[in-house]
Amino acid sequence: MSGPGRGNTAKSAGMFRCFFYSRTNYYLADSSIEFYREVQEGGFNLGLKWIGYLWLFSENQFKKLEPSLSEMEKRGAEYRIHSKEELRDKLEINVKAAETEEGRIMNLENVDLGLFIPKAGKIDVDRLVEFYEAEFRRMGGEVRYGVNAEELVVEPKLKLGIPGEPYFWQESRVVGVRVSGKVVRAKKTIVAAGVWAEQLLNPIGIDSYSKPKKRQLFVVKADRDKLKKLLHVKGFNKYDSMPFTILPNPRVYVRPDLDEETFWLGYADDFNRPFKLEDDPQPEENYYRYGIYPVLTAYFPQFADAYPINSWAGQYAINSVDHQPVVFEENGLIVVGAASGSGIMKADAIGRIAAAVYFEEEEAQLYGDRWFKVSDLGIKQRRIEVEKFVI
Amino acid sequence: MSGPGRGNTAKSAGMFRCFFYSRTNYYLADSSIEFYREVQEGGFNLGLKWIGYLWLFSENQFKKLEPSLSEMEKRGAEYRIHSKEELRDKLEINVKAAETEEGRIMNLENVDLGLFIPKAGKIDVDRLVEFYEAEFRRMGGEVRYGVNAEELVVEPKLKLGIPGEPYFWQESRVVGVRVSGKVVRAKKTIVAAGVWAEQLLNPIGIDSYSKPKKRQLFVVKADRDKLKKLLHVKGFNKYDSMPFTILPNPRVYVRPDLDEETFWLGYADDFNRPFKLEDDPQPEENYYRYGIYPVLTAYFPQFADAYPINSWAGQYAINSVDHQPVVFEENGLIVVGAASGSGIMKADAIGRIAAAVYFEEEEAQLYGDRWFKVSDLGIKQRRIEVEKFVI
Repeated sequence: MSGPGRGNTAKSAGMFRCFFYSRTNYYLADSSIEFYREVQEGGFNLGLKWIGYLWLFSENQFKKLEPSLSEMEKRGAEYRIHSKEELRDKLEINVKAAETEEGRIMNLENVDLGLFIPKAGKIDVDRLVEFYEAEFRRMGGEVRYGVNAEELVVEPKLKLGIPGEPYFWQESRVVGVRVSGKVVRAKKTIVAAGVWAEQLLNPIGIDSYSKPKKRQLFVVKADRDKLKKLLHVKGFNKYDSMPFTILPNPRVYVRPDLDEETFWLGYADDFNRPFKLEDDPQPEENYYRYGIYPVLTAYFPQFADAYPINSWAGQYAINSVDHQPVVFEENGLIVVGAASGSGIMKADAIGRIAAAVYFEEEEAQLYGDRWFKVSDLGIKQRRIEVEKFVI
Repeated sequence: MSGPGRGNTAKSAGMFRCFFYSRTNYYLADSSIEFYREVQEGGFNLGLKWIGYLWLFSENQFKKLEPSLSEMEKRGAEYRIHSKEELRDKLEINVKAAETEEGRIMNLENVDLGLFIPKAGKIDVDRLVEFYEAEFRRMGGEVRYGVNAEELVVEPKLKLGIPGEPYFWQESRVVGVRVSGKVVRAKKTIVAAGVWAEQLLNPIGIDSYSKPKKRQLFVVKADRDKLKKLLHVKGFNKYDSMPFTILPNPRVYVRPDLDEETFWLGYADDFNRPFKLEDDPQPEENYYRYGIYPVLTAYFPQFADAYPINSWAGQYAINSVDHQPVVFEENGLIVVGAASGSGIMKADAIGRIAAAVYFEEEEAQLYGDRWFKVSDLGIKQRRIEVEKFVI
């Protein structure tokens, strides 16, 4: 890599929300975002824009969410409901997309209402990693790019000179990492390598608790009046920007970019999308053409004949068990990862928890004086609150 | 494979116990073993021998287990304690192994007592799979060997002829498996491929919840009086056999084989033993010579200069999260696996749970009229009781 976050981080859509049922999700995301807000207000521009999330639902879909939503409201989560009529007026969206033959074939759902989340938006991911890199250097940290972390080095505490040591009866630990042929030694070694973690961890028999899955983004230009109008729609946020909008079904999403006058389009497919580590994953033209495009245009006819001017693909490190990050220490090694696609919006909290693990503290102090029990993200006493607001 | 269970099953030590704190472990193992007992009593010899497990402990080690042990006793679990003196007399074991310099270097623990579990022993794994195969054929099942299950076949419910379909908006499912170039179609497809599961599941983006890790066994002949005496020790079981014996630390185990007049020696190493799929894993001579041998002879001097006449290696499919099997259905596919080294002793129960998943029943009837909630071994509502009797 040639700089910070140049793996999959830079390929992210860079969206965040502080709107979850699960306290695990909420604490991690909300404290991170509040910290980012402070950084930005302190003068380091992170490109935070609170454009909001707009989830579109049919009545049936929404009904299933209402119990968890009302519980979240009690806890102080803010949202607004937009009526079908309002959405049709503002977004010129086809609220009856499910009622055509194509709609039925594609398993679409009508738009009966919209759930708008104000505490959500976008962040400039490059700026975010630049901020942390600068802070790390300021503390005396040293950073190297363009070098290859080849393997973790395990050594016995007491070297005996036996061929092939350490053996299992020897106390042994990770003493560092071989980087471009040279061993960099450390008291504790931290692996936070995203989807590449398994390449380092498998050889020493430690599970990364995650698998890589490709995610793709397609950029379409707002090159006509109807698309410009959609992009600059008023009434949702102070930027007069279309919110980050998620279609009812399948949950194709539209991320507006006012600076570039574009829309980023994506869909996180699950079944039949391989788990497979790729250093340079490629976007698939047909994924847009036959996957996203027909769904998108069924709801937003404005996009008719709109084809990508740019596209790319990255990978999520997916924890299929509970979709939450893992942070744990074993034999001198600290593993931080498996963020399952929410790594950026939770990064500050995850970092503080990793630091607490390093210093062997039981609780991590998240930004805003919220305390988080470190073992909750560990393996042996893992305690994750299940996300009930699943859409 | 040339027959049933010829992957890693046939390479197992074939040991079982019905002695667990965790009800998940207990129900799965105990109901399976009780079924195997009935099969054998019904005339199909499974080679079941109730030689028992003998765990050796230092006082300190044992103290930590006492709370869970007394809870297990309340629930009816049977065990006997053998004193240090008794063990020294019967097994001619060095109870002070920790007190030499080598003992200290190898982190050994003294033998202060032995915990003997009568409801435990060995099983002829080949016979077990032969039994199930015969039953399956009797029910009309068809079996093929020497063919390669190349890939799971995913198809949309409604084929539209679009290049690259199915797309994510299409309802699609696993319709079968490509076997040596030909698609075998099925209403539901079951993958129970052990460590090879990930090769079939990764391409369709389903997690196997397990990773392969090598396990090795070394066979030493009872070729002298002292070893013969150890093998045929009286007072533990009706066979006058040494029980399956597990050393205090590291937990090297000794599996006696009266028919062959041998001992099988093994140790399940964890840290620094790679996760890596191997079709034909090899035993490592040095693993015996420098790993097992010095530990073994520190406790059992009878094995001095004893070297393997045979050895082999297989692989466990390890679920690092909770070390329990997974059984779940997704889009026409049923996944059964991740048994983490306890697959044989739980196989009957796992099979019944898989059958319940197939028939979409909420509970599986295990042997002996014990009911097991199917979703407890699933992913979404997984509910595993943690094993507190961890040794």
